[in-house]
Formats: sequence, structure tokens, C-alpha cells
Amino acid sequence: MAMRTAVSVLALLGIAAAGPTGADPAAAKAAAERHLAGREEAIVAELRGLLALPNVATNEADIRGNAARLVKLLEQRGIAARMLETPGAPVAVFGERKVKGAKRTLLFYAHFDGQPVGPEAAWKSRPFEPVLRDGRWEDGGKVVPWAEASFPLPDEARIYARSASDDKGPIVALLAAVDALDAAKIPLSANLKVFLEGEEEAGSPHLAATLAAHREALASDLWLFGDGPIDPRGLPRIVLGARGVMAFRLTTYGPAASLHSGHYGNVAPNPGARLASLIASMRKEDGSIAIEGLDAPPPSEAALKLARTAFDTAGMLASAGVGASESGLDYGASILRPALNVTQLLYGGAGAQRNAIDAEAAAGFDLRLVPGMRVDAAKAAIAAHVRKQGYVLLDAPPTAEQRRANPKLARLEWDGEGYPAAVSSPEDLGVARAIEVAREATGGAVRIAPLLGGSLPIAPIGEVLKTPFVIVPIVNADNSQHAPNENLRMKEFRAGIAFYAALLAEAGKGW
Amino acid sequence: MAMRTAVSVLALLGIAAAGPTGADPAAAKAAAERHLAGREEAIVAELRGLLALPNVATNEADIRGNAARLVKLLEQRGIAARMLETPGAPVAVFGERKVKGAKRTLLFYAHFDGQPVGPEAAWKSRPFEPVLRDGRWEDGGKVVPWAEASFPLPDEARIYARSASDDKGPIVALLAAVDALDAAKIPLSANLKVFLEGEEEAGSPHLAATLAAHREALASDLWLFGDGPIDPRGLPRIVLGARGVMAFRLTTYGPAASLHSGHYGNVAPNPGARLASLIASMRKEDGSIAIEGLDAPPPSEAALKLARTAFDTAGMLASAGVGASESGLDYGASILRPALNVTQLLYGGAGAQRNAIDAEAAAGFDLRLVPGMRVDAAKAAIAAHVRKQGYVLLDAPPTAEQRRANPKLARLEWDGEGYPAAVSSPEDLGVARAIEVAREATGGAVRIAPLLGGSLPIAPIGEVLKTPFVIVPIVNADNSQHAPNENLRMKEFRAGIAFYAALLAEAGKGW
Repeated sequence: MAMRTAVSVLALLGIAAAGPTGADPAAAKAAAERHLAGREEAIVAELRGLLALPNVATNEADIRGNAARLVKLLEQRGIAARMLETPGAPVAVFGERKVKGAKRTLLFYAHFDGQPVGPEAAWKSRPFEPVLRDGRWEDGGKVVPWAEASFPLPDEARIYARSASDDKGPIVALLAAVDALDAAKIPLSANLKVFLEGEEEAGSPHLAATLAAHREALASDLWLFGDGPIDPRGLPRIVLGARGVMAFRLTTYGPAASLHSGHYGNVAPNPGARLASLIASMRKEDGSIAIEGLDAPPPSEAALKLARTAFDTAGMLASAGVGASESGLDYGASILRPALNVTQLLYGGAGAQRNAIDAEAAAGFDLRLVPGMRVDAAKAAIAAHVRKQGYVLLDAPPTAEQRRANPKLARLEWDGEGYPAAVSSPEDLGVARAIEVAREATGGAVRIAPLLGGSLPIAPIGEVLKTPFVIVPIVNADNSQHAPNENLRMKEFRAGIAFYAALLAEAGKGW
Repeated sequence: MAMRTAVSVLALLGIAAAGPTGADPAAAKAAAERHLAGREEAIVAELRGLLALPNVATNEADIRGNAARLVKLLEQRGIAARMLETPGAPVAVFGERKVKGAKRTLLFYAHFDGQPVGPEAAWKSRPFEPVLRDGRWEDGGKVVPWAEASFPLPDEARIYARSASDDKGPIVALLAAVDALDAAKIPLSANLKVFLEGEEEAGSPHLAATLAAHREALASDLWLFGDGPIDPRGLPRIVLGARGVMAFRLTTYGPAASLHSGHYGNVAPNPGARLASLIASMRKEDGSIAIEGLDAPPPSEAALKLARTAFDTAGMLASAGVGASESGLDYGASILRPALNVTQLLYGGAGAQRNAIDAEAAAGFDLRLVPGMRVDAAKAAIAAHVRKQGYVLLDAPPTAEQRRANPKLARLEWDGEGYPAAVSSPEDLGVARAIEVAREATGGAVRIAPLLGGSLPIAPIGEVLKTPFVIVPIVNADNSQHAPNENLRMKEFRAGIAFYAALLAEAGKGW
């Protein structure tokens, strides 16, 4: 049964099934389970300590504090570690353990920075004070004081904190997997490198420079990305790519200063209404993009087919709490399209509603790019679209003269450089081997996804280092990453440790 | 010249010119000027004291504190005053001075509550710590410490604080006008009543009840409204009506909780984009309303003609800092149309942009109604429009079941009752007399405006008390009322005191 799944997946990927090469992750899995049985409290304590360190990417001191802690944690398990400094870039963390006789080098990537916490009032507990609950708070899960926690924790228990799942949980899972193999004296199947990034949530603007500056240290045969969620069915997955992302802000201008909406209604241009019309012009009701030139090649039949089995549409819709997708398509078909997400609207202040027409309104967007779309072409198409709606685009807030001379003014600000989508080739031997190990480690349960809806700064790795990759997510799908009340469920966390142990023990063999 | 203007204005209003009836406000004006020459520092100090009292309508204790101060101020000039209590309603202030032999009773209305202060960061000084500047701050006007102020203040000097112009300035101007006439022993031409409201900026939801409860106390022959700005040319005005207003909030719903915009982009409905499309569907680019059934009768030719001379389009556009009106029409023609103002957009939080699709987005609106529009019909048309866009309208945030069952959910919340426009009949003898006095007091400079763009809760006065009214604004047009940095310019404040003195001395005579 497991074998048939492997063959069909690999056939679908266009490569011959490799046949049973002796990947036997049972030992690694057993080692992980033994290790967890005795050490779970210590593993969770390690994660708690890491989660207590604020890690918003814009706070340099915080990022450095996280990096210092990570260097220590790596060194504690015999992984030679150091801060990776690149002029002008936030600090990253690099670790390496050479394995005697190993032919291959696996590089584990994760990021330790987190999204801004957003509205604190929406958090049920403070974002950097990790809290244990006996279930999902939305389902009535109660806080369990740490002093009263009994290990092993129940499967349903969750740790709440910013970055619990994105990505501090996966980082600690990797460390625990190494410990488990060491404790069982199971050698790693490859040299292990660890690269932990500190600005992924800020769009990784310096990643290409960092990779170029440390090309030799970061040389490897396969990157393993410990980021993103598994699917809502709880099935593990390997993902072969991710949508790219670019974020921007669009500002529209009205009167020079905030004005009484009665005395100036119909007289002063309303920047809120103008912004709404611009947004409405950019996007159809089904989420498809109405911007000329912002085209995406349609997904391949193979990708659509993989996506159909890889994703759980019903589960994803249930986790979103809606009855139908915005696109009207299956989950997989939806994320194989580009997405223009409105992420913020700012106009008229956040307090009580005032009867005023304010001077400007702004919208935040992120655009998720699919393979074949270029960031620079997307920027040009967006700017051309705004101009086509009759707007003069500015590089700065308008001067009084510009306001008087131009009936319609707007400003586009690109939030960082952004990066395109990237997809790994399943024909690569390392990728095929990782899929095989994952299959065996999960009894065939693993799903091979052609693309992740979320974004990872993978493109520079392909472009700069020319290294293949697979994404190996472990965290629960309903983890609320990027949102208030981010959390990590114990069941997936433990399964993730075993999964990583299997990859470390087996994925470097046989190619 | 002045005579010709009067005749033509009155002819335009459809009534015969009354002819010179002996209104001679010169004595009152001279009295006001003498009074100001000696007492300006004390008048400004009285205003400062009043401005230092926070007065956001939602804070009951603050409103009561303001009312208590106002009762004292009225009594100081022999106007018998008291709090006007109405069950369930915020407190108002009532004052009365009976004048021996007077045939008529004039009632002066103003409100002492203020708009919410909005973003504090946008204020150059604190909203409830009145500051003196030697000019407009945007033009480089500098703060003058009160201890260094030299009286009389320059014409260009401005007092900055919430409610400086809307309406605490006019309230203090009325008190100064009474003092000036008393000092000159010029009798008031009518019994004087004063009614000061404490919830106008909250939409006057209890005004009708208050008027009904105190019908006898508030009986009068003519209401004088001390609210709203004069025009940007600095010309005084009498206004015969005001647009009505109703405010509301429209909320759209997306996923049940905030979700990662990568993993859920194209999958979870985007409430920000939906809100934008709804707004775009409600309003054309020129500000005209695209909601079926939200129709307004076109303005009369007479009103359009009055509006053309009454308003200074170029000045209003200059004060807004724009080259053209949103409607493409003259100022007067613009405000004779209904206006659907977007006043607030709330989505994705006010902090740094997050890569998330939030659970809901909301927009604040106010609709300015012109004569002939009904509030209940407007509400029904708006609700029908939202439904016509495919939305199910809710009375409360959606349940999980509602989210799953309905692809498009929205909520409409009416912010208070709102009130329709009201226009006074220029055929009323009291209205005609007030126009005449104003003309003579201003040497013919006064402009007769058919409607004010802003709103005043006048309709209940017509409906409940059946009393005619005129609006007698005195404050500078660029006063930033409802916005940060509200201010009152001394030149207009002083002219306003003289204007009110003339009205008090003359408007009760001859009818």
C-alpha cells in the first residue's frame, strides 16, 4: 500500500520510482519516541525559553538576542555554531556538524524572527509569555499553569506564543531530533548544516547578499525548510515550492488637511472612497487579479493533479470557518493562482468615527506570486494600473502645488524587494530521496504538495546557491501564524521531531 | 448699494423687500467695539477656561462639568440659568433673561460638546490645553505664551483647542455681546433664551425628547444658531438651513479568525477587498450616490442662484488645498446635493502591516441629506443596496454557522438616529428681520446661504416646536472643526461679538 503510493506520486512527478533503497526510518522514529518519553519536559522548556525572547524582525537588539540564544542551543548538541554577519544585514545563525564518512550535506533552514504581534488586545495571553492550554482556546481550551503541567502533555495541548509554530517550534524540533539520534547512537546520514534567518517575516531583503557572502559555508546538497504548516487533516507533507511575495502600500490623497465632512462633502475629494475604488479595480470578486499585465501562466496539469491529493479543501475551509473558497476553486487550485491580498486599510484614525474627510487613506497589500511571475514586472503592472485609473503617482507625500495641480494623486511604496516563487525539481536525486524517506517514515501518509500558499525566500537559494530544496513542515495547520494567538499543538510537534529524526538518519543515504 | 443687495436678495427669496424699518445696529456695534477695547483679555480668558474642559460627548462627567461652568457664566450676566435635565438624555443648559416691554423672544442655540479629538499625534498642541498662535500653524504661526500675549490680539492671532470654533467660541461671543450692550445700557430688543446642547457631535439623539420635555421653557419666536463657519472670504453669512446627517458603520466578514495571507490568499474571503468593492458600488467618482432609491429632489433654481453668490468656491477649494471640487461643480451646487462621506476604514489593525487576512473590515460613513430626503428611506435604500450586492445583512457579528452557510455577510449599524435637513422659510417675519439687521450690521456684506453643508439638528426644532430659525455663524472657515488643530481666529471672533450685539439689540424689533 505504502509502496503503491510512492510509485504513483513519483510517476506523477515524472520520475521513475526509485524502488526500495533500504530507507528504514523505524529506528530513528523509535529513538525519537524513546527520547521524548524521557525528555519532553526539557524539550518544552527549551522552546519556552526561546519563545520568551521577543523577535519582531524590525528590532535589531531582539533579533541579536535570539541569535545568541540559538548559537548556544546548537553548541549544546555538538553543532559548531556562530553568528553569520553580513554587512548591512541582520544577523543570522549558522551551525555545522561534520559526520564521518558522510557523502552528502543537508542544510536545515528555519527563521527565528516573527511577525509583528498585531493588536495586543486580540491576544488571549501575551505574545512573548508562552502559555500552555489543554486545547484550542476557541474550543474552550483552558490555561494550564506550567507548574501544574504533567508530561507527556496530551496530544491536544497547545503552546501559545508568537513564533510557537513559525518557526521556533520547528527549530526546537530539529534540536530534539539530533539529541534523540545521539542518545540512540544512530549516526546522521549526512553532514548537517543549520541556517537560521532573522528577517524572513520582513521579506528577507538581505538573504541574497547573505547567501552570496557565505556561499562556501552554506554549500550543501539539499536544503530542508522547516517552515509552514502541515495540512488540516494532520497528514505530514513535503512541499516542492512556495509562492513568492511582494508587499506594498497604496496611498490616496484628499484635502490638504482633515476637513469637516459636512461642509466639504462632495467638495473635497474623499481619499477613503478613492482608495476603495482603486482596490475594487484591481481585483475581481473571486479574488482573480484585474490588473493588466499581472498575468500568471496557468498551472500545469501535473501540478493541479498533485494539488488535488495534497490538500484538504474541506479542512482548510473549515479552519477558515467559511463554507466556500473565495476563488470558488479547490484549495490547491486556489493557491496555484496568484493572490492579491488586501492586508490593511488605514483611514480616519483608529478611534471613534469622526465626521471628517481626512487628508489621506492607505491600503496594505501583499501579492503572492506563482512560478513564472517576475517581481519587477508585477511592480510595473501595478503602477501602470494605478496610472490608468487617472492617478499621478508620487514618490513622496504631495506638495501643496501638486495637490492643486492634479485632481488624482496616489503613492505606491514597495515594502522591501519581495521575491518570486520557486519550485524544486522532483527529478533531483536529493529531493526524490527526501520524499522516499518521508513516505516510509509516515507509513505513506505524507502528501506531496506542488506549492505552498505561503511564501519562503527560496528563490535566492536557487539563484545564488543553485541548491535544490524540499519544504518539510511539521506544525498544525490551525496554528494562527502571523495572527494573534499563534500556537503549536503537541501532537504535531512530537510527530515532527520523529519526522526530522528520520530525515536526519536517512535522507543523506543512497544518492 | 447695500439697499440694492437687500432688495435683490429678498426678491430672490420670494418676498417683498421690507424697506428700511429703522434697524440701526451702529450703536450696538460701537458698544461692542468699546467693550472689546477694554475687556478683550477677560473675554479670551473666559473662553480659555471653557476650552480647558474636555467635552467629548460620550463622557458624561465631562459634559456635566461643562454644563455647570456654563450655568455660572450665564448667571454672571443676569441670565437666569439652569441645567436642563431630561430622563435618559445628557444634560443641556438653559438660560433666560426677560426684557421689559419686549414683544418677541429670541432663542440662541449652540452646542458645548465637541468631536472626539482623533489622532492626538496630529495635534500641534493638546486639544484641551488652549494655545495662542500669532497665525495659522500651517503658515508658520508661532505659539505665543499666554503670559506674553498683548491685548488687543492681532487679527491674525488664533486660539487652538477642540471646540474653539465649534461652538465654545460662539457661546463666549454671545456672552460678550450681552455684556457689551449692558455696559452701554442698550436694551435687548427681545427676551433672550439660551439653549446649549451637550450631544450635538453625537448626532443629537435626545434633542427631540429634550425639546418635547421642555416645550414651554424653549418657546420662542426665532432660533438663532451660533454654529458653523463663515465663508473663506471672511464675509459674514446668514444661513437658512442645513443638510441633515446620518452616520453608519458597514462591516464585512472574512474568515472566522485572522489567517496567514499566503496560505489562505484566494481561499479565505478578503473582507478588506469586499468592503472596498461595496464602497465603490455605493458612490461614483464625482461623489454622486449610486444607491438606488437614495434619491434627492434637485435643488430649486432659487436655491442654486442664492448659493452661487453666497459661497466662495475658489476660497473653499483653496482652504481644502485642491484644484477642483470632487463633484466638478461650484461649492454651492455641491452642497445642495446629498453627500455620502467615507469617514473611516478599519482593517488589519493600525500598527505595522501584517501578512494576514483578518476576520472583518469596517467602514464609517456619514450621509448628508438635502431637503426632501427622509432618514428612514435612506436607511432602507442603503440596506437594500448592500443586499443587492449579494450580502446577507446581520444584526450582530456572525455565528460560526452563519459564516459557513453564507458566502457574503455584512452588518450595518446606524450610529444614532440621524436627522433630516431643514430649511427655514424666508417669508417668516422674524427670519426676514434677522436678515435685514445682519445686512445693515455688516454694511451689506452678509451673504444669504440657502443651506449649510454641515448639519445642525434643526429638524426637531421645526417638527417639535414649530419655530423658525436662522443660522448665524461667526467663526473663520479654516477653523479645522472636527479635525485636529481646531482653532478660532481673533478677527472673526471680534466681528462675531459685534454681529451678535447687533442681532440682540435689533432683531426683536419691528415684527
